[in-house]
Amino acid sequence: MQRAFFNPQSVAVIGAAREPGKLGYGVVDNILRYGYCGKVYPINPKADEILGLPAYASILQVPGPVDTAVIVVPNRFVPQVMEECGQKGVRGAIIISAGFREAGIDGIRLEHQVMEIAKKHHIRVIGPNCLGVISTFTPLNASFAAGMPPRGGIAFMSQSGALCTAILDWALSQGIGFSHFVSLGNKADVNEADLLESWKDDKDARVIIVYMEGLNDGRRFIEIAREVTRIKPVIAVKSGNTAAGSRAVSSHTGSLAGSERAYEAAFRQTGVLRADSIEHLFDYSVAFAYQPPLRGRNIAIVTNAGGPGIMATDALEQGGLKLATFTSETIETLRPGLPAAANIYNPIDVIGDALADRYEHALKSALADPNVNGVLVILTPQVYTQVEETAEIIGRLAAGQDKPVIGCFMGEQRVGPGVKILNKHQIPNYTFPERAVGALRAMADYWESRQTEPPKYERFEVDQQTVRKVFDRVRSEGRLTLGDAESREIMQAYGLRIPRSILAKNVDEAIAAAESIGFPVVMKIASPDILHKSDIGGVRVNVRDSDQVRDLFDLLVYRAQRYMEDARIWGVLVQEMAPKGKEIIIGVNRDPQFGPLLMFGLGGIYVEVLKDVTFRIAPVSRQEASSMIEEIRAYHLLRGVRGEPPSDVQAIADTLLRISQMVMDFPEIVEMDINPLVVYETGKGAIAVDMRFVLKEKESEG
Amino acid sequence: MQRAFFNPQSVAVIGAAREPGKLGYGVVDNILRYGYCGKVYPINPKADEILGLPAYASILQVPGPVDTAVIVVPNRFVPQVMEECGQKGVRGAIIISAGFREAGIDGIRLEHQVMEIAKKHHIRVIGPNCLGVISTFTPLNASFAAGMPPRGGIAFMSQSGALCTAILDWALSQGIGFSHFVSLGNKADVNEADLLESWKDDKDARVIIVYMEGLNDGRRFIEIAREVTRIKPVIAVKSGNTAAGSRAVSSHTGSLAGSERAYEAAFRQTGVLRADSIEHLFDYSVAFAYQPPLRGRNIAIVTNAGGPGIMATDALEQGGLKLATFTSETIETLRPGLPAAANIYNPIDVIGDALADRYEHALKSALADPNVNGVLVILTPQVYTQVEETAEIIGRLAAGQDKPVIGCFMGEQRVGPGVKILNKHQIPNYTFPERAVGALRAMADYWESRQTEPPKYERFEVDQQTVRKVFDRVRSEGRLTLGDAESREIMQAYGLRIPRSILAKNVDEAIAAAESIGFPVVMKIASPDILHKSDIGGVRVNVRDSDQVRDLFDLLVYRAQRYMEDARIWGVLVQEMAPKGKEIIIGVNRDPQFGPLLMFGLGGIYVEVLKDVTFRIAPVSRQEASSMIEEIRAYHLLRGVRGEPPSDVQAIADTLLRISQMVMDFPEIVEMDINPLVVYETGKGAIAVDMRFVLKEKESEG
Repeated sequence: MQRAFFNPQSVAVIGAAREPGKLGYGVVDNILRYGYCGKVYPINPKADEILGLPAYASILQVPGPVDTAVIVVPNRFVPQVMEECGQKGVRGAIIISAGFREAGIDGIRLEHQVMEIAKKHHIRVIGPNCLGVISTFTPLNASFAAGMPPRGGIAFMSQSGALCTAILDWALSQGIGFSHFVSLGNKADVNEADLLESWKDDKDARVIIVYMEGLNDGRRFIEIAREVTRIKPVIAVKSGNTAAGSRAVSSHTGSLAGSERAYEAAFRQTGVLRADSIEHLFDYSVAFAYQPPLRGRNIAIVTNAGGPGIMATDALEQGGLKLATFTSETIETLRPGLPAAANIYNPIDVIGDALADRYEHALKSALADPNVNGVLVILTPQVYTQVEETAEIIGRLAAGQDKPVIGCFMGEQRVGPGVKILNKHQIPNYTFPERAVGALRAMADYWESRQTEPPKYERFEVDQQTVRKVFDRVRSEGRLTLGDAESREIMQAYGLRIPRSILAKNVDEAIAAAESIGFPVVMKIASPDILHKSDIGGVRVNVRDSDQVRDLFDLLVYRAQRYMEDARIWGVLVQEMAPKGKEIIIGVNRDPQFGPLLMFGLGGIYVEVLKDVTFRIAPVSRQEASSMIEEIRAYHLLRGVRGEPPSDVQAIADTLLRISQMVMDFPEIVEMDINPLVVYETGKGAIAVDMRFVLKEKESEG
Repeated sequence: MQRAFFNPQSVAVIGAAREPGKLGYGVVDNILRYGYCGKVYPINPKADEILGLPAYASILQVPGPVDTAVIVVPNRFVPQVMEECGQKGVRGAIIISAGFREAGIDGIRLEHQVMEIAKKHHIRVIGPNCLGVISTFTPLNASFAAGMPPRGGIAFMSQSGALCTAILDWALSQGIGFSHFVSLGNKADVNEADLLESWKDDKDARVIIVYMEGLNDGRRFIEIAREVTRIKPVIAVKSGNTAAGSRAVSSHTGSLAGSERAYEAAFRQTGVLRADSIEHLFDYSVAFAYQPPLRGRNIAIVTNAGGPGIMATDALEQGGLKLATFTSETIETLRPGLPAAANIYNPIDVIGDALADRYEHALKSALADPNVNGVLVILTPQVYTQVEETAEIIGRLAAGQDKPVIGCFMGEQRVGPGVKILNKHQIPNYTFPERAVGALRAMADYWESRQTEPPKYERFEVDQQTVRKVFDRVRSEGRLTLGDAESREIMQAYGLRIPRSILAKNVDEAIAAAESIGFPVVMKIASPDILHKSDIGGVRVNVRDSDQVRDLFDLLVYRAQRYMEDARIWGVLVQEMAPKGKEIIIGVNRDPQFGPLLMFGLGGIYVEVLKDVTFRIAPVSRQEASSMIEEIRAYHLLRGVRGEPPSDVQAIADTLLRISQMVMDFPEIVEMDINPLVVYETGKGAIAVDMRFVLKEKESEG
């Protein structure tokens, strides 16, 4: 990837043009204008020379080897051009040309054709339908963008080319520096995961930021993102979150938007930070690119104005950060250097008439305090405020520190020169306190997520063979849903506790079963054809004696037959009645991008009305299972309220882990749930009372 | 207020100075420099002339009348100066001088002294400890601010002077126009409510924005804000929301921060929009100042880029707005003017190579569609994009429309000239789609809140005399809490249903009572000294027969005596056992700023664990009571889930209204709750099973 796109020794522009204003001219111009040092070959059968370089009729006529081809010819010529690139030994093709998947059925076909050729010749492809690729340190601007961003620590990739142009235009005036700037286009080959992998060990890329609308291969993204976030922060904006937004995605780029819940889980499980807007994306990334890590949540604020200090404090608290509590040494140091009316506790208010020296004293003291993880310096341009001197002092004091210092010079005209100085010293500045705190919060979140251990997946000893046999039998019978007894068999094979249960084929067997289990019992009609047994009156709990068993056996069978005349009836299941406990629901759905998505919540109204549930992509580690349990709002109920004993969350976690293992072992499970899993007090475990399995249709075997 | 501060015919600056750099110089300079047309009198006993004007030793020596005095002398001279202002007949004093309430106990005393003088002479006061007052249309810049904002429709007031300086600095470069700009300082006299009232009918002020940390008189604010928001939008940033933020408030300005819940309720009940940051405050206010009202939630988007279109769509949906569905006429009109690949459904994607003419066609069609309430125009600077032409067209098409048009020209350098043109045409522009949508959402919220009827307060016929007698009796006995029987008496006086109940002084009376009520009954120890009866085992439900009554009578009395040897025991209360229903909690607390704060929620874990409750400031209208009930998350439970019948929400609303009336009638109730109020299915009402009242200590009578 490095050689193919970001650091090639030679670049051919296929479709290079002589006329300014044409894309094929713009690309060659950008390559030359922004100082690319390798060889550049314009390809155009109708030109001898373009921008002072000799032009070639075809890439095959280029004298030396070509690492990268930038393709700007009309879509219908792309297959042939790619074929020639293959013969020439090109490593990477940046296909700027449009008219592929985004343009309907013919475009999709054309894109497939192009990719066949690329694969045959082992050419990696960025695009088609993209703006191009910029690598500022090489330097190489292989795009038709109207400019070149300054060098800096941010590596940016975007699924939207238009967004690239807007961001470039904006970043140029903000002085935001990039290492890489890639427009991914249709992602026919190179996608987000590839670039993450490629930038993982690139020291120029200090922080990676992503604008995405949908992923092609969610599981690979997870795998790679998880590694990369251990080394450097990855921040993403994912759009198409809402139903209406997703419709807009599909109409525009043809990308399949995975469900929002799955993306949320994926970001959280991989440590990818999520920004809710492009503005926040850059707010965060500048802080990461410029400043050392924020190793905790304790922030000192230095301000020359009360109001903004309060606004920052509010924002800190709402964002889960804290005002640091200064040591007594810090207080002692602060006091003599500030006027009596100044607040020397956090936030340090150096008061409206503060000159730069008071800022110096306050910032130095705050940075020296071991209880402080980072400092936010707020400045409002008051009558005597020394904007530039203060900025210089902040820059000087922050240099070489292992704690981040963040600026909030509020205003524009008067504070402008100070902001420039901060920028020079790599101090990020935010016009308003809330945005500054937002950046600190992202830094703290990243630091914490990096401290967590990489997930370890436990494996329980289970009986896969039994499950395999059940599934095979079910499918051989042309079914996709499992009967009650089958579900029970599977749960047992995976070590999950279920109520004792005996299938009775007649009344006498039912009575004997109930007596051996012990009253009261539950009775359920046993039929593979009746899925929602309760709905037809096919389940009866709290059956208290043999007479009741006798009556109910007949009644349940009668009801089943009335419901479906030719239902296969295996008899009646007589079941231990699980004692009362807290009702839990655990479920799995298969997400098209990410695979099995595990859900956890409390049953009944908590899931149905309050939607108080949480998701993770399987497999999950024990830590992930625990955090699922702890993050629902109703978690308090499991910890025990009003004198109730706490519930056995360990047993819930075990259930989640075993289910996670099961759905990984058997990809044919497309849907399953346990509802309810009844959980008892700590140490007393949990029983899965009811479960439901749906299998995938068999892949066509022909 | 107009004449006293915003449109005076003459201004004296007391403490005017000859030396540039001094505040007393800056104020005179600002008044002159920014074109004030009235008379200006510098007051300084040591100067003959200041900035070309004759100076006077005292305001008493000024030849003509003086409407406004700007005071910048050191704090200790302010009382004398105010006394002279009074003699001179000054209407308004802007006290810029600091060293009052914010400076500790001596400052508080000095501020009181100054206000005594002001009241005696009927002088209104802004400040002390403020930046001053700017009125751009007069024009009058009676402040020491470093500049004068352009004229515009935004009237701004701020409790923080430093924030004023920052905002002024920022607004100048953004070209944001103001009608008024007031730094409120310590608010010794003029406060938020006064300015709202004064700006209510001022046509220059199209939108009023407020930065506040706390209010002095919450109820007056509510009353006035409610009127003003019917005429023009009021947007507030309230800081000091969190515990830590509030500490910062009190340490800085000495203002009492009311509880966050009360502010939230107040803003909602008055239609004041709340912004969560200064950035959003201005995002919203510019839209209100520039554009006609957004009369609905249906938005059309015109864009030349898919990605930003999706981002905007997501933001719309998350913000409760909708993509408008175009009429078939609009679709028919759109089609011929756009290329085949364009999306002619909403969002209208005019595609990356769109020139200004496509924007014109799309915007014109969208504006003409009756299903569209407002339009968002997104532009990314692509290769062929005509930034300035497009901006001109948007300005032209939006002019004279009764629907708002909002711009989102993304970028900075290339789109900058377009943004200037938009600004000239009063089209607000936002760099990113999320912020543009935020402004639209604020507009839609305002429109809706203005459509609601002003609250009408019902009055039920109640028996105030009984309540008065009970309270007097309780207080005369030196108690602040009410006994069970007393609480019941009050509930009945206010027409609230309670369980039938008979106080039994001995066993025989208890048995007779239970028989007349009918079994099962509840028995409760009756003692004014035992508040939490359940905790000591003093309550027994489900008492089934006379024998049980007999045993329990003795047991309850024994337990009460054991708990408190000298407890006054009135006997045992025998009560109808309310049938099962949904348990509701209704409570009132008195907020220091706003008075009685009414709470509603479902009882048990919903209030204790999930904190699923909602608040309003009393009195509440029927509509407000209904919205309280509907806005809790668990509202679904009251509507009936899983085949349950819906609960009698009418009865809950009635209870809320009666309680609201009760706490307004009797300000001595500082705390009360009904827990539980048991509510039955629709038409079957609700019964208040348990209640608790706490009265205020009697005001000292000496």
